[in-house]
Parts: sequence; structure tokens; C-alpha cells
Amino acid sequence: MQDTSHNLNNKRIAILSPVAWRTPPRAYGAWETVASNITEGLVARGWKNVTLFATKDSITNARLIGWIEKGYEEDKSQVPPVSTCLHISKMMEMAGEFDLIHNNFDYLPLTYLRLIKTPMLTTIHGFSEPDILRVYHEHKDSYYVSISDSDRDPGLPYLATVYNGIDLSNLTFREKTGGKLVHYGRIHNDKGTHLAIEIAKKCGMDLIIAGIIQDQKYFDELIRPHLNQSSIQYVGPVNQAQRDALLEEAYAVIHLNLIPERFGLVMAESMAAGVPVIAMDLGSCREVIADKQTGFLVKSVDEAVEAVGKIDQIDRKKCRKRVEENFTIDKMVENYEKVYAEIFRREAQKK
Amino acid sequence: MQDTSHNLNNKRIAILSPVAWRTPPRAYGAWETVASNITEGLVARGWKNVTLFATKDSITNARLIGWIEKGYEEDKSQVPPVSTCLHISKMMEMAGEFDLIHNNFDYLPLTYLRLIKTPMLTTIHGFSEPDILRVYHEHKDSYYVSISDSDRDPGLPYLATVYNGIDLSNLTFREKTGGKLVHYGRIHNDKGTHLAIEIAKKCGMDLIIAGIIQDQKYFDELIRPHLNQSSIQYVGPVNQAQRDALLEEAYAVIHLNLIPERFGLVMAESMAAGVPVIAMDLGSCREVIADKQTGFLVKSVDEAVEAVGKIDQIDRKKCRKRVEENFTIDKMVENYEKVYAEIFRREAQKK
Repeated sequence: MQDTSHNLNNKRIAILSPVAWRTPPRAYGAWETVASNITEGLVARGWKNVTLFATKDSITNARLIGWIEKGYEEDKSQVPPVSTCLHISKMMEMAGEFDLIHNNFDYLPLTYLRLIKTPMLTTIHGFSEPDILRVYHEHKDSYYVSISDSDRDPGLPYLATVYNGIDLSNLTFREKTGGKLVHYGRIHNDKGTHLAIEIAKKCGMDLIIAGIIQDQKYFDELIRPHLNQSSIQYVGPVNQAQRDALLEEAYAVIHLNLIPERFGLVMAESMAAGVPVIAMDLGSCREVIADKQTGFLVKSVDEAVEAVGKIDQIDRKKCRKRVEENFTIDKMVENYEKVYAEIFRREAQKK
Repeated sequence: MQDTSHNLNNKRIAILSPVAWRTPPRAYGAWETVASNITEGLVARGWKNVTLFATKDSITNARLIGWIEKGYEEDKSQVPPVSTCLHISKMMEMAGEFDLIHNNFDYLPLTYLRLIKTPMLTTIHGFSEPDILRVYHEHKDSYYVSISDSDRDPGLPYLATVYNGIDLSNLTFREKTGGKLVHYGRIHNDKGTHLAIEIAKKCGMDLIIAGIIQDQKYFDELIRPHLNQSSIQYVGPVNQAQRDALLEEAYAVIHLNLIPERFGLVMAESMAAGVPVIAMDLGSCREVIADKQTGFLVKSVDEAVEAVGKIDQIDRKKCRKRVEENFTIDKMVENYEKVYAEIFRREAQKK
């Protein structure tokens, strides 16, 4: 066993991150965050040959290789598909130097797969459009991981679900309850920011909203008219330190997503800080939240208002513990190690 | 010499067409038109192993291979980048079966090039955005053809300029002059449709406009207000038979492009029908039109109005002759044969 593990740690792993943002991102950038966490987690667990393929300004304890100076979301002179195909193809040209490619950058890398010999694991962080399934279905002989049991395409052979892990060092657990409702993440109809406002008003509680505005029209029409300097505030995007301060003020995090959540980093982060989450029972929410233990799964604004009244029943230590046991970077990487081992076992059988 | 030519005709050629439209397109689809003309032209000149990679509903006398049922512009359920990368990558997986790939589908195919052994010639039909040059510059060791001397990037090594060839069988030469001004092609500010209207009004002549509306706002604001059922008419997109009928009515074709023309099929088609062209002296226009011989190169609306007054000085037979000598499919394919031969010569030297 020791020997196998030792050999596994020596395998040459390429982690392919997106190039929309720096890895790790300065603020928003969910896939880059996960790619960074996997990379740093592997290094922390003793993997010796890990290479991160990301923008050239990325930061890592692994080897960094990149061709794109900055994320295309941070440098609007770039045409995103151009940066994307250059980044991916130049990584593929180096495929022979690796034992495994771990793709965190959507469907395009799969289209190079039959031209290289290195096996590839794709973590499907999301199906941006149903039509991208055409590419996945064309490559059913490849390896896939889902980020929740709920976010699976029935036509694809998955090796496992590996939940995203979060960096607990940036999330201070506090037993003391804050006094406000908090809603943060992307400001978009999908995330139900307008429902958080409705809930705060019905409860007569203050609400702090944070995050990048992903749909300006939605923000201008449904959010901005409700903002003021006191009870309903929007504070813009938050970095990790600001997020920690934000969660200190939180009585509960309101997360009434209107489309199925794929994983839900916000929920895990909130619980890590000891903050219960009231979430719509859609998609992966019931996998992340333990209903009535670390928050409440609801089906409507009224149920959410009712749940706010029951927040004092939640033991904040249980919130933190659920994350420590299921959603840490170390746990995620441990699970990926099992997946990698399974891929190497299957690849060895092919030979 | 005969032997070399015989060997050349036996080479296995893959013509990669776009999958935006059927090849050949039903109406609009400039790159698909050229890809079709190259394919059919090679077959007509005795090439025995030509394969067209295009949508599955495409029509060819060569072998047809495709994976995309219909062009993504004709089937809006498709996400264009998905169809694009599937089409290209599946062609690349078959690269070993060909001696040469002739890419007519933009920059993405280049990113697969270092993973295959077959040489590739790319005809650059246009630089949709300056940023796509990053991909071309990354692959300066590949082979390029420009479609006019003016449409060249100074940083790229071109083997030749090969002008587009058009199918003369669909363009009836008529010595008799029509009575109207004609403007056709994409209805877009770049093509100066609004200037054609201005010229017609200043000349007191009727104008027929035809073509697909590529910018609806432009059409609604700058074109539609001037339309009526008599002097300024818009007749929609035209197929080949309708185009032939349209040119029969033409006294001259007005083509006051506002950005450099890359090649300008419309100018060649018009001249083939014997119709002189009044064109903006930008980009390739002076390569296609022989100034004062087959039309007039102008720099303004006023110069164009003046040119309309001199159209009777143009010998319509010279218009036709210029096309027959320079812009036929046979001439284009003959030029491509020379380029192919040069590529095979260079590839043989590498071995």
C-alpha cells in the first residue's frame, strides 16, 4: 500500500485551468478557484510532479506553464475563443510529458483527445448549454467526474462525484451570531438576489448583498431600486478577507437559487464560517446542506421567511463540522487521488 | 512533366469547409461557396482523391464526409462553437488518410496541427478580428494563401495569392445594358448600402438592392426609410437564378464598401455578366476591377455619381473577359494546383 501510494505521488499530473481569470482568481472565477485548490492540495499532500496550466500571472506552488498573459475577462483586448484554443492546444502539444491531464476547462479539450496518448479526466463544472453534451457524448470513452450527484447527465459514464473543497484558512468560524441576512455570489436572476430582498423585507431584517453583477439589466431593474444606505445594501464584489468580514455580520445566508445549483460554493463557505444557509431545494443544495442541521431547504419565499424564524435552532458548530468532514480541499484532493488511482488502474489494464 | 502532374492528381486532398451553411450554400455563405468551387474544380480537372468535409446535407462530386447534419446558421438549436470544434476535430482524427488538408475554416484547425503529421494549407478568407492573428503567428511554419494581395498580414509567410473563382455557368453575359443601378451582397454598413441609395437619388436613377440583412438596426434606420415600390426597391436575398435576372436589369453595380474589400465576389460576378462596377478604392477593389476598363474606382459618393455618367465608355465584353482570364473556378484551381505542388515539394525536402 505504501509503495502504491508512493508511486501515485510521483505521477506527472497536468492540471488544466481556464484562462478567463488568473488562477487563483482575485475575486470571481469559480472554475479557476477549484483548479487552484486541486493543484495546491496535491502539492500539500506530497505530489511531486504537478504542473498547473493557467494564465502566466497565476500563482502556484506547483510548476506553472502558461501562454496567455492575463485572463481574458481581465484584458478585454483578447478574443476569448482565441485565448482558449491557444491555451488548450499548446497544453495538448505537451501531453506526452504527463501521465494524466486533469481538465477543468469545459468541452474543447476533449476534441484534441484522440490525437494524444495521455489519458484525461474532465471535471464537469457545469453544462453552460445543453448542446455541449454533443462533445461529451462523442467522448464517452474518456473519464468524467461530477461535482454533485444532482449535476449529472444520464448519458455519461462518471467515475465519481467529487465535491468542491474550500480553503478553510480564509473562513473564520464564529460561534457568535451576526444580526443581518447576507446574500452573496453572482448577482443574477438564477441566484435569486431579488428573492433575498423580498425575504429581508418580510422579516424586517437588514440585508447585505455582495458579489459581481453578472446581469446588469437584472441588477438595474430588480435590485437597484430597493437599495439604500441602511437596511438593504449592496457592497460590490468581495475578496476573501472581505467575505470573512461579511460572514461575521451574518445571521443567515439566503440562497434562493432559481435553477438547480451544480455544487454551491457559497453554501459551503457560509457553513464553514458557522453561518446557517437557507437555500432553495433545487439541484445539489440538499447534498451540501444537512436540512434542519446546518440550514433549511425551502421551496418558496414564505418557507424561507419561516426558516429565518427557526435559525436559532441551528448549532453553528455543526455547520463548520459538516464542511470540515465533506468540503475541505484536503477531502476533495483525497477523493481525486482515488479517481486518479482508478484511471491508472484502468489504463494499465488496457496495455 | 506529365508524370508529375499525374502523380499530383492522385494525391489525397481533404477540403475543409465551414459548417455555418451547407456546401455549396443555398444563398449566402461565401467561404462555403469557395470551398465548394475548389472541391468541384479539382474533380473537374481530374483529381481522383478529393474529400470534402462539410455539413452532412452538402452536395459534391467528390467524396463527402460530415458529422454536422445542417449548418448552424440554418439550425439554431446548435451552439456554433460546438459544431465547429466537433467538425474540425473529427476531420483531424482522420488526418493520416490524407496527403494535404486544405483548410477553408478559419484559425481553429491550426491548433490541432502539431498533433497530426499531414501538412495543411490555410486559405485566409478573412481576419474577423485582429486578435485571431495570435493563432496564425503561433503557426508560421504552416502554409498560407491570401485571397488578394491587399488582404495580407505582413507577419505571415504566404505561398501565394489565389483569387476566388466564380462559376460562370450561372452568370449570363449580356451585351445589352440594363436601366437600373444595382447593389447586392450583405446589407451592412461595411458594404455601403446607404451610399448606393444616395448615389441613385443624386443620379435620378432607379436602384434595386438585394442580399441578406446582416445588421437589422442598420437596415431599419438607414435603408428601410428610403424604400418604395418603384425607384428604390429591396428584393431580399437572391439565389443564383435570381442574381442572373437581377444583373440583367443592371446599368452598373454600385459597391461603395467602407472597409477594405478582401476579395469581392460581387464585383467579379457583376463583371462576368458584363456589368461595370463602381467601387470604393479600398482593399482588393483595384485588383478585381480594371479602372476605367471594367468599371471605376472612386473615393467618394460624388466621384461615384460622376462615374455613373461615364458608364457608357465601358466595353461590357472587357468586363466578361477580365473575369474569364482571372476569376474563373478553373483559373483558381489551376493556381491552387501550383500551390499544392509547391507544398509537396517542400514536404519532400523535409524528409
